[in-house]
Amino acid sequence: MTSVDLADLTATEAARAIHTGALKSAELVEACLQRIAEREDLVGAWTFLDPDHARSQAHAADAAAQAGRPKGPLHGTPVGIKDIIDTSDMPTERGTPLHAGRRPRTDATVVSLLRQAGAVIMGKTVTTEFAVYHPGKTTNPHNPEHTPGGSSSGSAAAVAAGMVPLTVGSQTNGSVIRPASFCGVYGFKPSHGAISRHGVLLLSRALDHIGVFARSVEDLALIGDVLMAYDDRDPDMRPTARPRLMDIAGESPPVTPRIGFVETPHWDRAEEETKQAFAELQEALGDDVESIDLGAPFDRVADWLRIVMEADLAKNLAEDHARGADCISEKLRSMIEAGRTHLALDYNRAIDWMPVANAALDKAFEWCDALVTPATTGPAPHGLATTGDPIFCTIWSYLGVPAVTVPIFAAENGLPFGAQLIGPRGDDARLLRTARWFAERVGR
Amino acid sequence: MTSVDLADLTATEAARAIHTGALKSAELVEACLQRIAEREDLVGAWTFLDPDHARSQAHAADAAAQAGRPKGPLHGTPVGIKDIIDTSDMPTERGTPLHAGRRPRTDATVVSLLRQAGAVIMGKTVTTEFAVYHPGKTTNPHNPEHTPGGSSSGSAAAVAAGMVPLTVGSQTNGSVIRPASFCGVYGFKPSHGAISRHGVLLLSRALDHIGVFARSVEDLALIGDVLMAYDDRDPDMRPTARPRLMDIAGESPPVTPRIGFVETPHWDRAEEETKQAFAELQEALGDDVESIDLGAPFDRVADWLRIVMEADLAKNLAEDHARGADCISEKLRSMIEAGRTHLALDYNRAIDWMPVANAALDKAFEWCDALVTPATTGPAPHGLATTGDPIFCTIWSYLGVPAVTVPIFAAENGLPFGAQLIGPRGDDARLLRTARWFAERVGR
Repeated sequence: MTSVDLADLTATEAARAIHTGALKSAELVEACLQRIAEREDLVGAWTFLDPDHARSQAHAADAAAQAGRPKGPLHGTPVGIKDIIDTSDMPTERGTPLHAGRRPRTDATVVSLLRQAGAVIMGKTVTTEFAVYHPGKTTNPHNPEHTPGGSSSGSAAAVAAGMVPLTVGSQTNGSVIRPASFCGVYGFKPSHGAISRHGVLLLSRALDHIGVFARSVEDLALIGDVLMAYDDRDPDMRPTARPRLMDIAGESPPVTPRIGFVETPHWDRAEEETKQAFAELQEALGDDVESIDLGAPFDRVADWLRIVMEADLAKNLAEDHARGADCISEKLRSMIEAGRTHLALDYNRAIDWMPVANAALDKAFEWCDALVTPATTGPAPHGLATTGDPIFCTIWSYLGVPAVTVPIFAAENGLPFGAQLIGPRGDDARLLRTARWFAERVGR
Repeated sequence: MTSVDLADLTATEAARAIHTGALKSAELVEACLQRIAEREDLVGAWTFLDPDHARSQAHAADAAAQAGRPKGPLHGTPVGIKDIIDTSDMPTERGTPLHAGRRPRTDATVVSLLRQAGAVIMGKTVTTEFAVYHPGKTTNPHNPEHTPGGSSSGSAAAVAAGMVPLTVGSQTNGSVIRPASFCGVYGFKPSHGAISRHGVLLLSRALDHIGVFARSVEDLALIGDVLMAYDDRDPDMRPTARPRLMDIAGESPPVTPRIGFVETPHWDRAEEETKQAFAELQEALGDDVESIDLGAPFDRVADWLRIVMEADLAKNLAEDHARGADCISEKLRSMIEAGRTHLALDYNRAIDWMPVANAALDKAFEWCDALVTPATTGPAPHGLATTGDPIFCTIWSYLGVPAVTVPIFAAENGLPFGAQLIGPRGDDARLLRTARWFAERVGR
């Protein structure tokens, strides 16, 4: 425990060391606070952080361990929470002056589950405005002149900067996979309905997902096992058994996984560097990869997602728009205003296509274990005025299929970017197992 | 078995007699066919009936019983099926020339369940055009110059005329409760999502319900127990235990039920005779009834239902409209055309209000076991050009709460009409128990 900075431990390593007593939560949290003190001025990952509150949670975790009380799987491990997720002991301001000073009375389900698992809730991470496109203060930890991506900007940057080993975010279009790719960390957006959204800002019931950021596939599985628990307060969850992600992701695949390479209908938006990286990846995977051409309905998915997202923003942010349109960015305002004009007929057709498109995709999964496709058009673009193009996340957000980004690529300018793996809806555990194999096979 | 016409037995009586061997299915089916032969010319309840096919099912049921094979709860009992519900061995023409000659390859789930329960599928009953408002050929069995109601016109009339003891229908706005009231039979629309709609014409996922017609509450429970089975091919069903309607409806209520009388915001549309009947009913119930005033949101339910129904008709009948608008009634065409103009924002707000309005209604159910309210504005109106006003079914269709109509009233012109009882969503068994008590307490 002396050769590495404690702040750079993976969550699995840290939690294991705390379990055996080799590491105290207070030491780990102190190392993370130290790292935050060093880097926060430049990175700007946090919107709320009270070091003493974090320390007191860590001391309580250590005292509980000392007293021989049972320890959860994240006992004493610090986790950052995107600032659209309610916390009873911290503000939740949703990246907008319209909710400045907002203090929820109760924890979101994911926060309760983390506390039950023993986690230290470190603080709240920066979100874009209402978790849509308008950026917050966060910069890319690899180069502060570049965007960290969004909307879960702070969650991705905090893990990348070594400030916490785990963070929670959300994705409606590309808000987990894109910032994870730009920041060079692992991001996981489980199947739609796998993690409760109770107590989280509602943008679109059909599209909103909770997702997580970490430094390894194993860590994604560790926190995924904690969060993927049935909650009847999220109307899109179904009662199912817990997925046993750690057990399954920890296994070796029984046969070498087969990977389907998908350009998507948006390949022309991939940068040259990305196209080159994927050509090399295909070569490296050799016989284990085969190109798959998505059929006709997928050409229209980006339109369908836009209609659903805009119409849902118009409804769910109507009150905010009514009382403070002036405080809303022009970009979001134009989405809300477009959303008001969409017809029920078009909206419902877009919703009806979801199961149809999933059934079409299932044919690909008869042949392969996972699809691989870009996570982003390339590395994080220069500038902080936008959070980058979410197009390579759009189809998978709409379908509600599980997605993982693995940070395997480095651009010429040194910035990282990811390869995105996609699994069939509901089979999150197998996707993580394939992602672990993939990271070992082609990782840097 | 000689003093009554076998065709007038309740389903429970008939099924019991077949079980003990006192009655053969073939005898019962023959009595029903005889009644149909006598009355069908005037009533017009059937759109497809093959007497020999019915007889051969009855003979097969008798042969199975003879051979000692296990008998289902509806063994040998004839059931009529609304002609929007698919049957593999009969046409399903949906009340429109656009589907003339349509022969589905498979049974709807409800038809499969009935066959598994041993029922004889007697034939297909008349529906209005696409199960909306434009009438079919059926007349009211109590007076052929009056409408039987709709859209499940034939299903209600067939039970009222003694042609079959049980029929299956459907309700999107008032299509079970209204014809049952007009025809003087018992009608039951269970909670939304309680009976599978797989293999049934889709008008509106949010509003469509399967319902049943019978001559007693016990009979409603008998067929309800057969049909209320989880089916994952209906996306709005949830896995739950079977409801044990017969067991619970057969019990005496542990304490005298309390009934809440509800005028609804549409009381001005009730006829004088209806208002008079409900005044007398309240007097008869005395201390067991109390008036309940529905709060503000209920004033807007009729608008919400209209928006959802029209927008869903526009989507789900789009193909029919495209290939044969000329063959669609003006009334339905105007609904489809209105449906195309509704905004996603209004549609989704109407959908969002469903759980809110249900929660508001739950307060009433803290005090009472069931609500009582008119099933229809009065008895069946004169003329066959419309199927009557569904307004007293609109709130309960929208809410998805279980509803039963009990035929307790008789108008001056001799026509029957019903009192509608409403229970909390999901508590269908208790509603039937209360309905049985109610029918005994105030029935004719």
